[in-house]
Amino acid sequence: MLDGKWFTEIFAESGSAFSLQITDKLYEEQTPYQKIEIFDTTHFGKLMSIDGCVMLSSRDNFIYHEMMSHPALLSCATPEEVLIIGGGDCGTLKEVLKHKAVTHAVQVDIDEGVTRASENYFPELCTSNNDPRAELHFDDGIAWIKNAPAESIDVIIVDSTDPVGPAEGLFTLDFFSDCYRVLRQGGIVIQQSGSPLVCPNEIVDMHQVIRDAGFDSQQTYQFPQCVYPSGWWSATAGGKGIDLSNAVNKVPATLDFDTLFYSIAGHHGAMAIPPFLQALLEDSRKH
Amino acid sequence: MLDGKWFTEIFAESGSAFSLQITDKLYEEQTPYQKIEIFDTTHFGKLMSIDGCVMLSSRDNFIYHEMMSHPALLSCATPEEVLIIGGGDCGTLKEVLKHKAVTHAVQVDIDEGVTRASENYFPELCTSNNDPRAELHFDDGIAWIKNAPAESIDVIIVDSTDPVGPAEGLFTLDFFSDCYRVLRQGGIVIQQSGSPLVCPNEIVDMHQVIRDAGFDSQQTYQFPQCVYPSGWWSATAGGKGIDLSNAVNKVPATLDFDTLFYSIAGHHGAMAIPPFLQALLEDSRKH
Repeated sequence: MLDGKWFTEIFAESGSAFSLQITDKLYEEQTPYQKIEIFDTTHFGKLMSIDGCVMLSSRDNFIYHEMMSHPALLSCATPEEVLIIGGGDCGTLKEVLKHKAVTHAVQVDIDEGVTRASENYFPELCTSNNDPRAELHFDDGIAWIKNAPAESIDVIIVDSTDPVGPAEGLFTLDFFSDCYRVLRQGGIVIQQSGSPLVCPNEIVDMHQVIRDAGFDSQQTYQFPQCVYPSGWWSATAGGKGIDLSNAVNKVPATLDFDTLFYSIAGHHGAMAIPPFLQALLEDSRKH
Repeated sequence: MLDGKWFTEIFAESGSAFSLQITDKLYEEQTPYQKIEIFDTTHFGKLMSIDGCVMLSSRDNFIYHEMMSHPALLSCATPEEVLIIGGGDCGTLKEVLKHKAVTHAVQVDIDEGVTRASENYFPELCTSNNDPRAELHFDDGIAWIKNAPAESIDVIIVDSTDPVGPAEGLFTLDFFSDCYRVLRQGGIVIQQSGSPLVCPNEIVDMHQVIRDAGFDSQQTYQFPQCVYPSGWWSATAGGKGIDLSNAVNKVPATLDFDTLFYSIAGHHGAMAIPPFLQALLEDSRKH
């Protein structure tokens, strides 16, 4: 069926697959952690895959990067100190640094190869890497959090691959307990939490682990993401001493930076959890 | 790459493809209008395709059918007389008939084959076909609208395939002008309008044609739809003597029927048009 050159990712858990038509493979590197590949596509610009899984495309990464950043930062009263775990393509860092309130943004990705590849093939995502507030480290994010001082960070963004391979530890109670310790009062952690359609239980589990880690509120944000399984994705946040369901109402009516996907109305919309998922979340809270 | 049995739909306009793993082909029929096929899939239940394009799956059709029905019906003060053009699988009809205010719902699909196949393979969508308020016709929807009396209908739902083949005429100024004539004051027409990511200009064009047909307001609703191109879909509505951007605020706080995807908060969220699309819409209004 797929004549010509295609990059295909099979999602075995949902018996589905997504393909992009490619014109060239531009780059391939086996780093100590994973295999990075960059392709040119016919309609989606550049495509980066890690171990055969789509990470991002030029065309639709703005949605993911904006939704991993702005809801959390705008829900935090004082988002001064920001830590990004993962995020090696630097697209999340760029969105974070749009916030004037941010005084220091540290990005800790285990694999320098991802950042170097992004600098070469997604330079538009790396335009803030030299911002004086930015600090890039290539290190183990789990150890980083473990060693970070208590109550030292306002927002932690976990911009990782799915919970397999080096990212597996970023979905555990241990990790979220460390995040809780490291966050200041009023602080927020946010982590990508998969597809509401094909893996709603990942979202349920993340609410559970965030609750168990001591957070006072949990909130899922849903958004479209063409290149990820089912095209419908989510991020789930925990608030320390903050009610995330209410924090959105304190976001100022206009933003002082430009976005392509994020809007205040869209922030509210992203929080409108559909009844089928709401029922799963409520059910899990009873047990 | 795709070993085993897969149904693959290629979206040539966006250089992408979506595949579902299938176990069997259950049915195939070449009707006078199109080729209908039904497959069993590993994870998405049954799959119906028409002329090789995915129409619906058991697993995710609830999102589409709810979003084609409830925002329009709940925005209309008196949704008594409803006309569905297309919609042969009867899923939209089922959602429409959840509304107690509806006294009469007429479904006009050109192809009886679609309804018969749905009765056999998606019986859960056809549970309201014998509702005394329902009337199923197998006829040309464009001619039906042309012959319908002026100001006789409250809500018109155009639940059609994409603008190729028999559905092409359902996207024209002629058709929407007829809809305008047939609608009562306070009436609404809604039509699926494609992917905001890969064909935003379809949405822009539909706003234009709805405006040109005389409607007083236009409103796009976006929602996830895994099996359609990019997994992000939309419907666009026109209001006759009604401001659709405000009508949502009059929706009662609780629904008297069950939904899996639709919620009042989600209705607001679906209307949160992202800035990149808002800019395209505003730009087109200037010309």
